[in-house]
Amino acid sequence: MTSATSSFEPERLGRARQAVADSGLGAVFLTPGPDLRYVSGYDATPLERLTCLVVPATGDPFLVVPRLELPAAQASPAAGLGVEMVPWDETDDPFALVAARLPRDVTRVGVADRMWAVMALRFRAALPGAEQVAAGKVLRELRMRKSAIEVEALREAGAAIDRVHGLVPGLLKAGRTEREVGRDIAEAIVAEGHAVTDFVIVGSGPNGASPHHELSDWVIRPGDPVVVDIGGTMPSGYCSDETRVYAVGEPPADFRAYYAVLQEAQAAARAAVRPGVTPEAVDAAARDVIAAAGYGEYFIHRTGHGIGLETHEEPYIVSGNTEPLEAGMAFSIEPGIYPGAHGARIEDIVVCTPEGHESVNNVTRDLVIVDG
Amino acid sequence: MTSATSSFEPERLGRARQAVADSGLGAVFLTPGPDLRYVSGYDATPLERLTCLVVPATGDPFLVVPRLELPAAQASPAAGLGVEMVPWDETDDPFALVAARLPRDVTRVGVADRMWAVMALRFRAALPGAEQVAAGKVLRELRMRKSAIEVEALREAGAAIDRVHGLVPGLLKAGRTEREVGRDIAEAIVAEGHAVTDFVIVGSGPNGASPHHELSDWVIRPGDPVVVDIGGTMPSGYCSDETRVYAVGEPPADFRAYYAVLQEAQAAARAAVRPGVTPEAVDAAARDVIAAAGYGEYFIHRTGHGIGLETHEEPYIVSGNTEPLEAGMAFSIEPGIYPGAHGARIEDIVVCTPEGHESVNNVTRDLVIVDG
Repeated sequence: MTSATSSFEPERLGRARQAVADSGLGAVFLTPGPDLRYVSGYDATPLERLTCLVVPATGDPFLVVPRLELPAAQASPAAGLGVEMVPWDETDDPFALVAARLPRDVTRVGVADRMWAVMALRFRAALPGAEQVAAGKVLRELRMRKSAIEVEALREAGAAIDRVHGLVPGLLKAGRTEREVGRDIAEAIVAEGHAVTDFVIVGSGPNGASPHHELSDWVIRPGDPVVVDIGGTMPSGYCSDETRVYAVGEPPADFRAYYAVLQEAQAAARAAVRPGVTPEAVDAAARDVIAAAGYGEYFIHRTGHGIGLETHEEPYIVSGNTEPLEAGMAFSIEPGIYPGAHGARIEDIVVCTPEGHESVNNVTRDLVIVDG
Repeated sequence: MTSATSSFEPERLGRARQAVADSGLGAVFLTPGPDLRYVSGYDATPLERLTCLVVPATGDPFLVVPRLELPAAQASPAAGLGVEMVPWDETDDPFALVAARLPRDVTRVGVADRMWAVMALRFRAALPGAEQVAAGKVLRELRMRKSAIEVEALREAGAAIDRVHGLVPGLLKAGRTEREVGRDIAEAIVAEGHAVTDFVIVGSGPNGASPHHELSDWVIRPGDPVVVDIGGTMPSGYCSDETRVYAVGEPPADFRAYYAVLQEAQAAARAAVRPGVTPEAVDAAARDVIAAAGYGEYFIHRTGHGIGLETHEEPYIVSGNTEPLEAGMAFSIEPGIYPGAHGARIEDIVVCTPEGHESVNNVTRDLVIVDG
């Protein structure tokens, strides 16, 4: 078995250089965040001191780094890429330092999508002739199409969060609060192999009808449906995200009715996934089933989002996205129905394959009835 | 005793509106992060869907929020401020929505310092006539000067991290790795009242000489000095950050010698703090002691950073910062000496008072010798 705990691939830097050269940009500036980690393997902490990998269209990439962070940068996979490290001292201006190393005629540069605006503005001042665009427009072409090692990392993340869902029935009980259950789930996410817990949604009763509800002091009642949407980041950097629905004892009959519709809609959207199909068609596959059953007004969000080094990234499975799916794209399929007194959502992370899709989440999608 | 677990003050929005009006900006745009939390009390998660508090120079502030997040926004302190909430749906363009609500003649806007660059670029496209500047230039005047309730929140954070340092001697032992000790410390940070652990540095032996070293598999040896620099965020949103130095058994004589110098330097910098003194003078107060003792080349970073809703914010205690301190400013005093075989740093968070300073950290600054 391949371990994806170290899932960086050195060839990404070369592919990023090629993408920058092809893009017409003079350079891209990658500050700490998912783009930097993708291209260089360096999982740097975002700080007010500038760390920035500069990937020019011509010439060699270099990493500008506060002298304090130099040991961390040198210990990262970036050191194995032959990237020159350019340390700067406390009273230096690192933005001017970057500008001085670029050709004078640079007219367009890409800034990392998640760069802090205050840094993008500093780069603008240091390079007043260079229009800024989002570097994500260049890097998305690489990041959206997962390599075999990335798919393996997503499988590991999916198996880990599956194990946590396997523990949830033992944690849910009438009389416990969402917060108590959520705390136990957060610990289990780490215990089952994630480096950090990213989010824990336990939405019971009416809270299940608010898709981004997190945790509250609501006391779970007998008969409450409970939406559990949880995820974390693995040591590899790749994220998990999975939603299942539980009920503490027998839920209301109207809930049973729309849960069956939801299960059918989620399966229809998964079945629609294959190369060449558009994200909006996948969204419609779920939405049509829900609308035909009369619940259309209660499905109030897109069907899914891409996932990888970020929990939410491209491609988004939403009306209006007509860029055809390709093998290797990874995203959530998570329709929901939220009438108000309760709600439900079923979510898997799937990878588009040449023939259709693979789900990295594989615990039952049936409603799980827990002893109250 | 005042509890600072809910330390939001509704009058901040009015002060922010006044600051925007005074600044000459047409509006500031605050996305999830410390500026938004400071002004509105809304501790929103940064997501790819735009959440943005717009504070115009004239007219009423409004909060643009994805419809999915509306219940969370309505449950936040922002709802008590009478701010209009403007929900947007999955296929809307929220940047155009903001632009349409602003006067046509807006020529300069402020964007939150930590706004994702990809969002600042979307605002630029939606408002092509509006130059962007960092909103921090406006908000720093408010955030840099802590109110009584903010100082109380920093005291609570300081007392919590003091309690964690009180536990460290029981965790350090020759034969344990930095990572093992660090894991225990991370748990203690939460157990002692923080909402999250932000960072854990355990630098033993030569790792103590790398100021931003985090954790490694280095096995702590008898006689190793150990630099422990730790912090977290309290439920109030305010941060802790404190460094103390331990030795597992008797450390080398040369370490003892420069530790005494460091202790004197750190005390000198604290003693220099009072209204009207410049940050660079405080920096010099520590640096001069260290240089006079012959260790100047081993003090390789600034003396400190402001702290509040961010671990690192203004004012920075660094050469070149000549803006006089005022009562209510809060920052770290953390000189270090890093000769290479080992290193040391002593750090307190202090608040500038009318007479001098108050330290929110109060466990001993002496070298703590732990039984090996």
